[in-house]
Amino acid sequence: MSAIEQTTALHLPALQPPRRYLFGPGPSMVHPRVYEALSKPIVGHLDPYFIQVMGDVQQLLKTTFGTSDGATLVISGTGSAGMEAAVANFVEPGAKFAVFANGYFSDRLTEMAKRQGANVVRFEKGWGETFTDDEATEFIRREKPKVVAYVHAETSTGALQAGRAICAAAHDAGALAIADCVTSLGGVPVEFDRTGIDVAYSCTQKGLSCPPGLSPMAMSPRAMDFLRARTTPSRSWYLDLKLIHDYSTVSHRYHHTAPISMFYALREALMVIAEEGIENRWERHRRCNRAFVKGVEAMSLRMHVPEAHRIATLNTVCVPQGVDEAKARKRLLDEPGIEIAGGFGPLAGKVFRIGVMGPLATEDNVQFFLKEFKKTLSAEGYSI
Amino acid sequence: MSAIEQTTALHLPALQPPRRYLFGPGPSMVHPRVYEALSKPIVGHLDPYFIQVMGDVQQLLKTTFGTSDGATLVISGTGSAGMEAAVANFVEPGAKFAVFANGYFSDRLTEMAKRQGANVVRFEKGWGETFTDDEATEFIRREKPKVVAYVHAETSTGALQAGRAICAAAHDAGALAIADCVTSLGGVPVEFDRTGIDVAYSCTQKGLSCPPGLSPMAMSPRAMDFLRARTTPSRSWYLDLKLIHDYSTVSHRYHHTAPISMFYALREALMVIAEEGIENRWERHRRCNRAFVKGVEAMSLRMHVPEAHRIATLNTVCVPQGVDEAKARKRLLDEPGIEIAGGFGPLAGKVFRIGVMGPLATEDNVQFFLKEFKKTLSAEGYSI
Repeated sequence: MSAIEQTTALHLPALQPPRRYLFGPGPSMVHPRVYEALSKPIVGHLDPYFIQVMGDVQQLLKTTFGTSDGATLVISGTGSAGMEAAVANFVEPGAKFAVFANGYFSDRLTEMAKRQGANVVRFEKGWGETFTDDEATEFIRREKPKVVAYVHAETSTGALQAGRAICAAAHDAGALAIADCVTSLGGVPVEFDRTGIDVAYSCTQKGLSCPPGLSPMAMSPRAMDFLRARTTPSRSWYLDLKLIHDYSTVSHRYHHTAPISMFYALREALMVIAEEGIENRWERHRRCNRAFVKGVEAMSLRMHVPEAHRIATLNTVCVPQGVDEAKARKRLLDEPGIEIAGGFGPLAGKVFRIGVMGPLATEDNVQFFLKEFKKTLSAEGYSI
Repeated sequence: MSAIEQTTALHLPALQPPRRYLFGPGPSMVHPRVYEALSKPIVGHLDPYFIQVMGDVQQLLKTTFGTSDGATLVISGTGSAGMEAAVANFVEPGAKFAVFANGYFSDRLTEMAKRQGANVVRFEKGWGETFTDDEATEFIRREKPKVVAYVHAETSTGALQAGRAICAAAHDAGALAIADCVTSLGGVPVEFDRTGIDVAYSCTQKGLSCPPGLSPMAMSPRAMDFLRARTTPSRSWYLDLKLIHDYSTVSHRYHHTAPISMFYALREALMVIAEEGIENRWERHRRCNRAFVKGVEAMSLRMHVPEAHRIATLNTVCVPQGVDEAKARKRLLDEPGIEIAGGFGPLAGKVFRIGVMGPLATEDNVQFFLKEFKKTLSAEGYSI
């Protein structure tokens, strides 16, 4: 290594992240207590204290997911690692895998399942549409898959997919039901047991208001039976849920070195949620969502998803004619420091994706956002 | 969810990790500046500031790995995720994969490669032994593999494996060379370019003295060519290095939501290293290692690995006759709060694994450790 390169490194400025208002689909704002937890001194990954922290997190996750019989654990990777863990462990090569495809993350599920050697069948709809109970049931009855997957809260479209009929039909067909709860957990009701989900995965940086880096999961007793009975190992060793479950909750035998600081943060984020009460939190998000929608409609803007199928924490607002959404987003980021996201795939340039979740979900913050949003759209040529 | 379960959650104590002296094989102690970086406010994963942070980390990693032509990036998972990324991307199903097997992590490489459908051939030696240049070269010439892998610093045994002959023989055979640098990076010289490594992966919580959670990687131009030419997708989408490289360094197109806070911490840890100077850091570790070995030999204890093949930052000390190593470790943890590790596999009960790295690698800390270690062994019945 040349001396010059070393010197270059030394001239990097000190870490000084700008203050952002995270009104995007995630990461969301983080509670000061969670930042404090992040910076607590680490212990070893096999230290009795860390084993206790993992146990606390599992317990707190049961309430958050809404499960009493299910096993909960945490994957040492982001939400997409949770998705891959679900696919790699529950979809054996050659197995028929049925996907409800109405957005970007069902496409990602499709891609992962193909890479695991699954026989993927898709029920396709437009981005932002949802599936009725009858059509979901009919699809599963016809296809007789081994595993069914749907995206509960589709981050790319803002649509919420009801899961009870899907899970019931999956069970009738002898299949397991996987639910992508990346955007729903901690923000809107997941109700794992009541819905009949077998495998749910999520992330830390949306409804849980913790920095990104971990993926909480829940597995039903049927899912655990499947895991135990599986004779071929999953293609992924890192995401092998048998080994991770054993390390996390049974023998505590070393599997990998868990991200200690992130577990501290997640524990604290879940404590903050437990103290508020998960139902109160859902209600707060619903209340802010009503205020938000009222506000954007007062600006003559249209929501992309019909009222009955919206995610309370993540809004897709149609970009009004004549406005360049990328420019508007850049202006919002550069001036008040507000992050929102654009659409992608078929929704590229057509929607803004605006999250109102966690610490930002208050009446005042909604009004603050609406004011800045209105100013920005006006500056970009939208006349209200 | 019953009210009772929610109440239970509320009765969990506040997060209060005990203070530990982390003298194990990792996680190692973390510099206060790194903790401070961890708790800085997050920005989005596509925010221009975060793109800059990723770029800084890549630049700093070049010095740390010792590469000027290689591409560096960071996997959003722990060291084992880096291992799986190396295997899943560079070992195609059916390809011949040659492993130098002399410890736990070469067994893990073997297991991962089998799960990826590789044809694995192993050159086996005892745990703690190393391979000479001649025998390594002869093995590769005979086997003509597509990919070769060795563990540079074997955490389970304390042995350091020289890589130049392995890499040269791999190249002669037209193979790529993968080096597991989990325990070496930032602690002892990796010298990626000079050694001729094609793919190296590491972790954050050992030689870099950062909390666990990320896996830094380096890839040679030959490795990048292989990736670009590969026509079948890797079985892992989450660890697909083409997609991650594109997100990290080329288009910055969304792949997954990177663990922002952990990247802040890693940037700071690499800055601390750059300020000290990587060569100075290696030298500091060597100096402390000499003091450590002198101290344990003065206690009539034996090192498991011959002097020429030791890892300066991780010592395997033979457990003396009559001492129950698990009890000794528990006593060290409970009383002075010192974490060290035991052996496993064929070394279970036979060695202590003692790390002296990062902030703990000072003369004073070595003497502090030796004093406490001596006291503990005496209490466990060892008479010096």
